[in-house]
Amino acid sequence: MAETTVGTKDEPILHGGDLDAARAAFPGAHEPWLDLSTGINPRPYPLPPLATDAWTRLPGRGEEEGLRRAAAGFYGAPSPDHVAAAPGSQALIQLLPRLRPPGTVAVLGPTYAEHAQAWAQAGHRVRTVAGLDELADADVAVVVNPNNPDGRILPPDTLSALAARRHAAGGWLVVDEAFAEVTPQASIAPRAGMPGLVVIRSFGKFFGLAGVRLGFVLAAPALAGTVSAAVGPWAVAGPALAIGTAALNDAAWAQDTRRWLEAAARRLDGVLAGAGLAVAGGTSLFRLAEDHRAPEFYSRLGRAGILVRRFADHPTRLRFGLPPDSDGERRLYVALAAK
Amino acid sequence: MAETTVGTKDEPILHGGDLDAARAAFPGAHEPWLDLSTGINPRPYPLPPLATDAWTRLPGRGEEEGLRRAAAGFYGAPSPDHVAAAPGSQALIQLLPRLRPPGTVAVLGPTYAEHAQAWAQAGHRVRTVAGLDELADADVAVVVNPNNPDGRILPPDTLSALAARRHAAGGWLVVDEAFAEVTPQASIAPRAGMPGLVVIRSFGKFFGLAGVRLGFVLAAPALAGTVSAAVGPWAVAGPALAIGTAALNDAAWAQDTRRWLEAAARRLDGVLAGAGLAVAGGTSLFRLAEDHRAPEFYSRLGRAGILVRRFADHPTRLRFGLPPDSDGERRLYVALAAK
Repeated sequence: MAETTVGTKDEPILHGGDLDAARAAFPGAHEPWLDLSTGINPRPYPLPPLATDAWTRLPGRGEEEGLRRAAAGFYGAPSPDHVAAAPGSQALIQLLPRLRPPGTVAVLGPTYAEHAQAWAQAGHRVRTVAGLDELADADVAVVVNPNNPDGRILPPDTLSALAARRHAAGGWLVVDEAFAEVTPQASIAPRAGMPGLVVIRSFGKFFGLAGVRLGFVLAAPALAGTVSAAVGPWAVAGPALAIGTAALNDAAWAQDTRRWLEAAARRLDGVLAGAGLAVAGGTSLFRLAEDHRAPEFYSRLGRAGILVRRFADHPTRLRFGLPPDSDGERRLYVALAAK
Repeated sequence: MAETTVGTKDEPILHGGDLDAARAAFPGAHEPWLDLSTGINPRPYPLPPLATDAWTRLPGRGEEEGLRRAAAGFYGAPSPDHVAAAPGSQALIQLLPRLRPPGTVAVLGPTYAEHAQAWAQAGHRVRTVAGLDELADADVAVVVNPNNPDGRILPPDTLSALAARRHAAGGWLVVDEAFAEVTPQASIAPRAGMPGLVVIRSFGKFFGLAGVRLGFVLAAPALAGTVSAAVGPWAVAGPALAIGTAALNDAAWAQDTRRWLEAAARRLDGVLAGAGLAVAGGTSLFRLAEDHRAPEFYSRLGRAGILVRRFADHPTRLRFGLPPDSDGERRLYVALAAK
């Protein structure tokens, strides 16, 4: 039984996207950097024109309702009352642990490390477990689906059964669907009305707008209302309301983007295969390579101004985000082949 | 002893800025509405050009450090380590009550109602008290300074003494300085290193950019660090980091703006006096009028498409934000004089 116990100490968690640190680690590397260290779509949703008063006025209640309606539609949640909006899914990861009295939490790992840290920070006893059955006796079970970084997918029926058991014991199942846009059939969002089920959605990854800060909880209306009340009024910035509403209502863009991401991920597989790197998992927003030469590849890419994601606990793993275009693909190909 | 006990029920709190509700209440009123219902500067800081990657990338650590440095300089806090940034001061009002075990809280009122509600919602026993001495025996004392809506100012020495007493008892003094930019001499921010003192600052009001969502806690580094850790990474959106840093570093704009606000507030006093309305308090960002005809004036202004702030518990009060220009001043003058 692989198990890690997380303390309340605030260790810095390694994340992708930190180009400042990359520049410091690889001085003189090729500029501009090609940042493949995140799972953020490199072809962002085109920003709609923003009215001046999106910046100057307090966001209106009607606008937030419009956003929640768009989110319910896009994610397939039963209704806007099943949606709570926040400035980023990370804000919700921070908040959820503070809405329950301290208890036991099991996180299906290895996965996005902020979940375990946030629950521990709020006073819960957190274990990272390797198997689904080990989630069963904690007050709160946390699953990232599809998982980051390996892309493992648990089917909605499995998760529904788990949520029902957690609810029967007074607990929650938290499902972080940060990358679920590219595998909508695996999303449990349409069942967000189930008691005890808390689904987290991230706006910035699929829409390529991580700087906007927008995320959602999908849950039964009473719980969604509790989350909204704890988040408080005017939580989502005026521009984020406008951009989020436009993007979530744009089904055609989403469909085209799913297709482009899938093709780009296949091309990335080809580039990695060319360097002899075996793809061990992932989604259409990122690929995970497993190779004993991973540290060497990481340094080689860094010297070439290409940042990928490594893992402190799994030094043989590297995660690759999608290059934005054929130039980026070529640059990655050349850098991987160099000695 | 005027005292109100706040329960945990989630009553909707009346706020300014809700034009949708105003339009519904006064169908057919003059458009566009003149919104004087908030204390937000109607002459916003000019938006700097925003790089595309402020929207697309995860906000960088270096950028957040730059923002905290700018905030420490502008507010006069001892160092950037005394600063925690969040997506709006309201987000911090929501968060602080969840960083302490349930206890007793005294709010010096009447004041901004979200404080009492947030502490109650998080399980604390909250009283709203009328006198400074009644703050002394609660775990946490909350003061808005200058106060909203009456503009009452407590001097830094008074608040320092209160903070020291609260700290000695293991508690906090929370000072919400949402409108303190226009009376910097009254700010306790330079003493933000005092243990037990938590200062909240709002970016959007003085800078006229309420839709950006940006706020700060100023406190001793350990407590500021606890707040930052609870807020979590990437809390402030990329555009908010860029705009906030530029604005907080622009001392010349701030000085000019203080002067303009002061003059505009004096002109507003003249307009109110012309209608026989006595100014009972306020700051250079809003004025409070006290008059038994307040409900009549509220309706008269509403029919003319001018929204001001009324108070459910104080029907004889109206709060007026600043008209943005002489047209707005004239429109208010005419509407107040009409029958």
